[in-house]
Amino acid sequence: MAKKVTVKESNLKQTISAHPRVIIEKVTPQIDGGIFPIKRVVGDRVVVRANVFADGHDQVKADLLYRMASESNWHKTPMKSLGNDAWIAAFSIEEHKNYVYTVRGHACEFSSWCHDLKKRVDAKRDAPVDLQIGSNLIKEAAGRAKGEAQDKLLSWAEDLVKKDHAIAIKLALSEELYQLMAEHFDLEKSVLYPQELIVHVDRVRAGFSSWYEFFPRSWGEKPGVHGTFKEAARILPKIAAMGFDIIYLPPIHPIGQAFRKGKNNATTCSPHDPGSPWAVGSKDGGHKAIHPQLGTMEDFRNFVKEAKQNNLEIAFDIAFQCSQDHPYLKEHPSWFSWRPDGTVQYAENPPKKYEDIVPFNFETKDRIALWEELKSIFIFWAKEGVRVFRVDNPHTKPFLFWDWVISEVKKEFPDAIFLAEAFTRPNIMYRLAKGGFTQSYTYFTWRNTKKEFEEYLTELAQTDASEFFRPNFWPNTPDILAEHLQHAKRPSFVMRAVLASTMSSNFGIYGPAFELCENQPFPGKEEYVDNEKYEIKAWDWDRAGNIKDVLTKLNKIRRENTALQVTRNIRFCKTSNDQILAYYKATPDFSNIILVIVNLDPHHTQSGHVEIPLHTLGIVNDKPYPAHDLLTGEKFTWLGEKTFVELNPVKSVAHVILLTKNVNRDHDFEYYL
Amino acid sequence: MAKKVTVKESNLKQTISAHPRVIIEKVTPQIDGGIFPIKRVVGDRVVVRANVFADGHDQVKADLLYRMASESNWHKTPMKSLGNDAWIAAFSIEEHKNYVYTVRGHACEFSSWCHDLKKRVDAKRDAPVDLQIGSNLIKEAAGRAKGEAQDKLLSWAEDLVKKDHAIAIKLALSEELYQLMAEHFDLEKSVLYPQELIVHVDRVRAGFSSWYEFFPRSWGEKPGVHGTFKEAARILPKIAAMGFDIIYLPPIHPIGQAFRKGKNNATTCSPHDPGSPWAVGSKDGGHKAIHPQLGTMEDFRNFVKEAKQNNLEIAFDIAFQCSQDHPYLKEHPSWFSWRPDGTVQYAENPPKKYEDIVPFNFETKDRIALWEELKSIFIFWAKEGVRVFRVDNPHTKPFLFWDWVISEVKKEFPDAIFLAEAFTRPNIMYRLAKGGFTQSYTYFTWRNTKKEFEEYLTELAQTDASEFFRPNFWPNTPDILAEHLQHAKRPSFVMRAVLASTMSSNFGIYGPAFELCENQPFPGKEEYVDNEKYEIKAWDWDRAGNIKDVLTKLNKIRRENTALQVTRNIRFCKTSNDQILAYYKATPDFSNIILVIVNLDPHHTQSGHVEIPLHTLGIVNDKPYPAHDLLTGEKFTWLGEKTFVELNPVKSVAHVILLTKNVNRDHDFEYYL
Repeated sequence: MAKKVTVKESNLKQTISAHPRVIIEKVTPQIDGGIFPIKRVVGDRVVVRANVFADGHDQVKADLLYRMASESNWHKTPMKSLGNDAWIAAFSIEEHKNYVYTVRGHACEFSSWCHDLKKRVDAKRDAPVDLQIGSNLIKEAAGRAKGEAQDKLLSWAEDLVKKDHAIAIKLALSEELYQLMAEHFDLEKSVLYPQELIVHVDRVRAGFSSWYEFFPRSWGEKPGVHGTFKEAARILPKIAAMGFDIIYLPPIHPIGQAFRKGKNNATTCSPHDPGSPWAVGSKDGGHKAIHPQLGTMEDFRNFVKEAKQNNLEIAFDIAFQCSQDHPYLKEHPSWFSWRPDGTVQYAENPPKKYEDIVPFNFETKDRIALWEELKSIFIFWAKEGVRVFRVDNPHTKPFLFWDWVISEVKKEFPDAIFLAEAFTRPNIMYRLAKGGFTQSYTYFTWRNTKKEFEEYLTELAQTDASEFFRPNFWPNTPDILAEHLQHAKRPSFVMRAVLASTMSSNFGIYGPAFELCENQPFPGKEEYVDNEKYEIKAWDWDRAGNIKDVLTKLNKIRRENTALQVTRNIRFCKTSNDQILAYYKATPDFSNIILVIVNLDPHHTQSGHVEIPLHTLGIVNDKPYPAHDLLTGEKFTWLGEKTFVELNPVKSVAHVILLTKNVNRDHDFEYYL
Repeated sequence: MAKKVTVKESNLKQTISAHPRVIIEKVTPQIDGGIFPIKRVVGDRVVVRANVFADGHDQVKADLLYRMASESNWHKTPMKSLGNDAWIAAFSIEEHKNYVYTVRGHACEFSSWCHDLKKRVDAKRDAPVDLQIGSNLIKEAAGRAKGEAQDKLLSWAEDLVKKDHAIAIKLALSEELYQLMAEHFDLEKSVLYPQELIVHVDRVRAGFSSWYEFFPRSWGEKPGVHGTFKEAARILPKIAAMGFDIIYLPPIHPIGQAFRKGKNNATTCSPHDPGSPWAVGSKDGGHKAIHPQLGTMEDFRNFVKEAKQNNLEIAFDIAFQCSQDHPYLKEHPSWFSWRPDGTVQYAENPPKKYEDIVPFNFETKDRIALWEELKSIFIFWAKEGVRVFRVDNPHTKPFLFWDWVISEVKKEFPDAIFLAEAFTRPNIMYRLAKGGFTQSYTYFTWRNTKKEFEEYLTELAQTDASEFFRPNFWPNTPDILAEHLQHAKRPSFVMRAVLASTMSSNFGIYGPAFELCENQPFPGKEEYVDNEKYEIKAWDWDRAGNIKDVLTKLNKIRRENTALQVTRNIRFCKTSNDQILAYYKATPDFSNIILVIVNLDPHHTQSGHVEIPLHTLGIVNDKPYPAHDLLTGEKFTWLGEKTFVELNPVKSVAHVILLTKNVNRDHDFEYYL
C-alpha cells in the first residue's frame, strides 16, 4: 500500500546540503506509484522512460540503472534523449529472478564546458581562461579516478594549459577525454530517482501458453461410465499433438453428496449423477484428496508423469469453497458463517440459493489458521508436481489473501503460475493481477466488433495494464457458450480460434466442446445445454466438422513465430471494411512479423483494403514483397501499403501472414515493446 | 521528493490483522503521487475522484474527507457513484488556510443485507432467519452508538425479530434505519486512503489579477529626464481607471556602472544612459536599496501608499543577479564564481558575453549564508508592504532554492504571490509551479492559430497542470514584441488583449507600449527597438489609435463576470472557420456564462458558424435566447445550437457574449470544475 505522506516543514540545512539540481519525473513503467511490480518473463525486455532535467545551464545526462534484486551493484545503460527532457532506454531480463530498476540523472559540467568551448572556437574567440577552467574540471575528475584513468586525466589537465592553444583545444574536445570524464563524473552531484521499481519475473510459459481444459471423468473407456485418470491418460498424446502445452483439470477432489446438483444444474439429482466437481469435499476428504472414482493419489501422480512425457503441464483448479459434506465443516466450524438458526451460510445471490456450496468466512477470528491451511493446499499440490493453478472466482475472496498467498507460494515455488478466473469489473480484475496473479481471464469472450477488439486490445497492450495484466483468451469455458457461438457453424469457431490464439500469447479452450463446434445452449442462457459440469459426456472426438486441424496449425504457427509469443506487441491496421479486422505483431527487432487479417462476418464473403505500415515494419515501399499465409500455405506477392483482401468464411476465415523485413529501419521504432 | 520504496516481505500476521477488503485507487487531483500540493484560492472548490471497490459481495460506500490542515477532525461528504467503481465528490475552500483531503471507503454489510432482503421480499421468500441476521447487525451498530441513537438502534433490533413479519420487513427497509446504520458503520472495517493530499490555498488575487508593468523613470514631469516615484505616482489613478489591480515595477535598485549597456543594448554607453534596471547594485547599494534617481525609501513607501489608495498593489521585481558594482561582490566574494585569472564569472551564452550581469553561485560552500540573505530580500520588501513578487529567470536558479524560499516567505506572509518569469521548456516551467510559484508566464505569446490555442488551453485547463500551474497571459513584455505584433495595426492589439484577458484569469501588459500599439521591432528580433530597458522614454499616453478604452472595458467585464475569474473552466466550441476561435467559461452552477468569439485574422472579415452547447449550458434548445455582447453593447437574439457570426476586425475583432441559463440542468455537468 502507499506510504503516508505528511506536510513537511521545509528545512534549509537539509535542503541545502543535498541541493541536487536534477529532477527526475514520470519514470515508467510504474504501477500505482511503484506499489506494485511490473511483470516480465525471462527473455523479455523492459523499456524505461523518464523526464530528466535540471535548473541552470548545465547539460543533463540520464542513466538507466537495473539489477537483479539479489545483486548488490547496478548495471548502467545511458538513456537516449527524445527531446523536451524525455529520455528512454531498455534492459533485458536474462534470468528467472526479480529485477529492480531506477533512473539516475546528473548535470554534466564538463559536457556543458565542451559545448561552450566549441561555440567559442566557432566564433574564433580565444579561450585561455576557459582552457584553465576545463583543466581544473579534469583535475577534479582525476581525484575521483584511479590507476591508469587517473594518470591519463592528470596528463590531460596539464596538456590543456601547457600545450599550444590550437592543440590544447583539439585535446579538450577529443572523444576519448569526453568518455573518460563521463566515467568519472561527480556522483555526489547526481540524483537517483528515490524509488527502486520492481520487475516480477516469471518463467517463459507465464507469457506464452496454450491451455486445454477437459473433464477426465468423461474419458472412461466405456461411454457414459465415470472415467479414471488411468483411462483418461490415453488422450494426452492427442492433446499434445494439437500443440497444447497446459492441461487444465476441473477440481479432482471428492464431490459432496449434500444438495448435489443433477443434470442441467437441477436442484435434485438421481443417485447416478456425478455432481459438480466444484462442490468440493465429502466424507472421502477435501482439498487435498482425490475423488475416489478418478483413482488414487498414485494414479494422479502417474497422470502427471504421463502428461510430462507429452510435454504437457497440469493446471490445477483451486476452488476455495466447500460442499456441506467437506470435513472442514466439522473440523473447523469457525471457518464458516453460521446463521442464527444454527445452519451454515451457503452461497446465495437472492433469491437464488446455492446450497451445494459453502463459502469460507475469510474474516473469521480464526483466520490465521484458515489462511495458513489454504496456503498449505497450494504447497501440497505443488509438491506433487503441479505448478499451474487456475483459481476459481478469486474476486469473492480478499485481495489481501491473494497478495499474501501467491507471494508465499512463489517463495517456495518460483515457477508457480496463477490464472485468475474473474469475470467481473475491470478494476477488480486489474487489482487481482497487480496483487500477483500471473495470468487473467478477460472480456475477450464478449468482444465481437472491429471497434470492440481494437479498443480492448489497445487497452490491454498499450496502457499500464500491459505491464501487469497478462490476458488469457478463452473462446469458451464450461460456464460460457457465448451468444455468437450458439447454433453457430464451423467458420465462427475457426474465427474465435484464430482471434484467441493470435491476439493473445496465452489462450485456452474447453475441449472437446470447442474443437467439435458444440453449439447447443441451455435455452435463454450463455451456457451449454446438458453441461459437462453435471454429467458424464461421451465425446466423439473425430466428429465431422471438427476444427482440430486448424487448432493444430495455429499452435504450430504460434510455436514457430516468436512475434505471437507476446501480447503487448499487438498493433492494428486500418481497413476499409468494418467486417475486416487486421493487426500485426512483431519482435522488437522486427525479425519476425505476423500480420493477421480476419473476416468477422461468419456468414458472408467480405473484402476490402488493409493498410500495412511498411515503413514501420522495415519493408521497402516501392518493390513487390512476399506475403506467406501460414494458415493456408498460399504465397502472395504484394506491392505498396494498401492490399486488397477477400475472405470467404467457408473457405478461409482469416489470413495469418508471415512478412519479412528487407531493410534495416533507420527510424525510431526500436522501443515499441 | 518521493519516498523510497523497497521490496517488502509479505507477512501474514500483519496482512491478516488489517484485512481491509476495500481498495482505493487513483485518487485525483494528485500531483506526482501527492508529493506536491494542488492549488486553490479562497472560494474555489476541489472536485475529488477515486476508484473505490472491494472484493466479495458487500456493497461499497465512499466518503470524501477534508479539513483545514490545522483542524484535527475531518469533515465528511458522501461520494457519488459514477459507475464502474468510480466515485466523485467536492468540497469548498472557505478560508485562506491550507487544506488536506483523502478518501475513505467501506464495505457496507448492512446495505448489502437490505439489498438482499428486498430481493427476497420481491421473490416472496419468507425471511425469518434473515431478519434475525439483520437484527444482529443492528445490535452491533448499537454497540458503536451512544445516547438516543443507541436506544433507537436497540429498539429496532428488537422489533425486527419480535414484530409481525410484514411489519418487521417494513421496519428493516426504512430510510431512517438505513441512515442511522450508515452513521454507525464499523470504522474498523473501513479503509482510509494512506495519503493526505494537500491543497495550497492562496488569497483571491492569486487566481484573478490584471497586471500593468511600467518603468517609473519614464514618467518624470520633464520628457526625457529621469522620473521619480513622486512624479510617477500621478499616473497611478489612470492605470487604476483602466481596471488594472497590480502595478509591476522593473527593479528599482541602484544600477551598476561597470559594463553598463547603452541604447538598444549597446556594449558601450554614454554618461547619460540610465542603464538596465536588471543590472542590480552599485556603490549606492544592492537589492535592499533604492536607485537614488527614483527617490528615497520614504518616496517608495509613499508610492506604495498611493497605489493602495487606488486599489493597486505593487509587484516587485526579484532579479537575483548583480552588476559588477554590487556591494555583495566585495562583501561576499564567496557567493560568486571566480575564474582562474582572478576575474569574476559574468553571465555568458558563448560566444555572447553579458559582462554587466554576474550570477550568484548557488552551489557555493557558503550557500547557507547566501540563501538566507536572498530570503531576507523578500522579507525586507514584504515588510515594506510588497506582497507580490515577479521573479526574473527563476529557472537559472536551483528548484530547491525556490521550493525553500517560497515556503519560508509564506510562513511569515501567507498573502505573498510569486510570479515565475520562465520562458523555457514545459517540464521546467511546471516544476517551478509545483515547487510553489503562485503564477507563471506561459507560451501564450507564441500561440497564434485556432489549433494552437485549443491545444494549449486544453493542456492548461484540463490536465494535471490545471491543478498546480496558474497561467498569467502577457501579450507583450519589455523583452518581447512577438512577430504578430511587429508593424501590426490596432486590430491585432485588440485581439491579443481580448484573448489574454478572457482566456486567462490572470493577465498583464507592458504599458504603455501595449495600449499605444507600439509595433516597431529591433530589426530581426522579437524585441522592441529603442527598448525602454536601456533608455528613458517619453510616452504620449493619449496617442491616436490607443486601445485604452478596450482594456478598460475588458477589465470591467472581468470584474463583473465571475466566470472570467478562473482559468481552468475554459472549454472550446466547434466553429466552421479556422479563423474563428470560440470558447466559453462558466461558473460551476452556470449562473454566469461568458462566450467569447474571436476573429484571429486581423486583416480580413471572417464569418462562420459557432456551435454552442446549449444543453450543457442549461439553455433551452427550441426557443430564442438573448446573447448580450458586453464589448459592443449589442444585444442579439439567437436560436438553436448553431450561430452565424461575422467579424470585421476593424469594427470589432471579437464578441464577448453574456449568456443566461434558463433551465436547471438535469444532467451530470455539476462537477466540471
